[in-house]
Amino acid sequence: MENLMNSLSAKATIQNRSALAVDKPQVIRVAFFISDGTAITAETLGRSILSQFASVPFETRVIPYVDTIEMAQAAVEHINKAYQTTGILPLVFDTIVDPDIREIINSAQACNLDMYEGLIGRITDEIGVEPDAHSGHAHDDVDSETYKSRIDAVHFALDNDDGARTRHYDMADIILIGVSRSGKTPTSLYLALQFGIRAANYPLTEDDLFDNQLPKALQPHREKLFGLIIDTERLQKIRQERRAGSRYASFKQCEEEQRAIQAIYMTQNIPSLNVSEMSVEEIATRILQITGLKRRIG
Amino acid sequence: MENLMNSLSAKATIQNRSALAVDKPQVIRVAFFISDGTAITAETLGRSILSQFASVPFETRVIPYVDTIEMAQAAVEHINKAYQTTGILPLVFDTIVDPDIREIINSAQACNLDMYEGLIGRITDEIGVEPDAHSGHAHDDVDSETYKSRIDAVHFALDNDDGARTRHYDMADIILIGVSRSGKTPTSLYLALQFGIRAANYPLTEDDLFDNQLPKALQPHREKLFGLIIDTERLQKIRQERRAGSRYASFKQCEEEQRAIQAIYMTQNIPSLNVSEMSVEEIATRILQITGLKRRIG
Repeated sequence: MENLMNSLSAKATIQNRSALAVDKPQVIRVAFFISDGTAITAETLGRSILSQFASVPFETRVIPYVDTIEMAQAAVEHINKAYQTTGILPLVFDTIVDPDIREIINSAQACNLDMYEGLIGRITDEIGVEPDAHSGHAHDDVDSETYKSRIDAVHFALDNDDGARTRHYDMADIILIGVSRSGKTPTSLYLALQFGIRAANYPLTEDDLFDNQLPKALQPHREKLFGLIIDTERLQKIRQERRAGSRYASFKQCEEEQRAIQAIYMTQNIPSLNVSEMSVEEIATRILQITGLKRRIG
Repeated sequence: MENLMNSLSAKATIQNRSALAVDKPQVIRVAFFISDGTAITAETLGRSILSQFASVPFETRVIPYVDTIEMAQAAVEHINKAYQTTGILPLVFDTIVDPDIREIINSAQACNLDMYEGLIGRITDEIGVEPDAHSGHAHDDVDSETYKSRIDAVHFALDNDDGARTRHYDMADIILIGVSRSGKTPTSLYLALQFGIRAANYPLTEDDLFDNQLPKALQPHREKLFGLIIDTERLQKIRQERRAGSRYASFKQCEEEQRAIQAIYMTQNIPSLNVSEMSVEEIATRILQITGLKRRIG
């Protein structure tokens, strides 16, 4: 079964393995995300919608930069080939602005799911302004304050990662704290890339944790601190993958660190969040919600 | 004019200042992005659609985690207040799965733009499966290979940023090269966060550039190299913001480095991309397209 699926496609998205527990070979429907730009918008919304059908496996393919007649024709060939191979209509999620190119895509043998069509028409009716004919908004943040804020935030996150440097904390928007491997670094970078927020992060190590007070470097910036919490089981699993069998990865150690850090958050009155069940996107969004921190871009 | 707008909202998105060059004070329409999850999907598609109306200024507000009746009622109050303040119907972009919560949001005084509604219905008709009743897909990548790939890629990008370490290049999926401040670091991180790709990056400094050969650390990994190019004017502007008046930021220096690096790309047969007019998303997507590199997640 597994092999058959691999032979159909290495990229098949198996959303629920139990759905595959049937006797006859299953044909997997292909979903395309197509755009005249990066296709990130089409893919984001498309995947979100597909996730509403968790019992159905889909194979997904992204086709960005369909911005010429030739590219559109090539995309149609891909779609038709997917139909011929599987015998079931592919789903085509697209965000294409140019009507000529859109028409070509719509001619493919597929269930066409145009994401802009209905919405842009309704907005035009409401605001009384026709949409521009340009494609996408890929160039939006170039040469703008947005670009600068974002790049500056990324470099800030890098320079101030993992407690590497603490002397620029007065410039930080937020300082994430937590035990080793609680997700501070990816969260800092996501806050920078997505929201332009300057996030430093500082690991609380054993010395700090059992000292019953905040490390000196953090004390003057108490109002910027935000604590991450992670369930002991999950922390242990992550650390185990890193350093299997070590004391660092032992359940006892993980548990003690978690207890100690939560005591610090409580006694020092530091807002915190249990991130065990969250994706990086969700952690970042929740932090904005809890702290009221304003995004610098978007 | 500027002050009036600021008083209306600090977050007003001024997409085209010329649209504001009128005599009477202009009321800015509010656009909401609302979801039962992070609202990243609603915001991504919503902003992309709004960018099709570049002459119209919008004030945007994001309301994530509308997953209870109470949260929905609070959101409706926000929306209605925006209508009362501006006198024009707000646009409400939402991706809400629960029908009861959706009904409440739809009761607001607004132009409601439900992103899921039509598409999910059409998919149900096509595939013959009803959507699940769960909300969003925020937990998708937790405890999965996706989560691990992503975090590993982020740490790889960090550890191998800016030529800091070169001994793990055999594990890299790609090694970005370019002059200082050509966008290597944000691109590496974006490739990691968005696609789970292990991207190292290495700056070609003056010594490397005028040596007419690749640095030793890069030579065994030639097939993984990808070169970034940036226009001299833009490079100079970026460096100027960093170290104003320095030789590093002089037009002459920027121009010579650009010429030298493009000669290296050409003689060494390294694929490259001029990223001057591109956002980080676009650079990353183009690199995948040019190199054929496969994403590890998504």
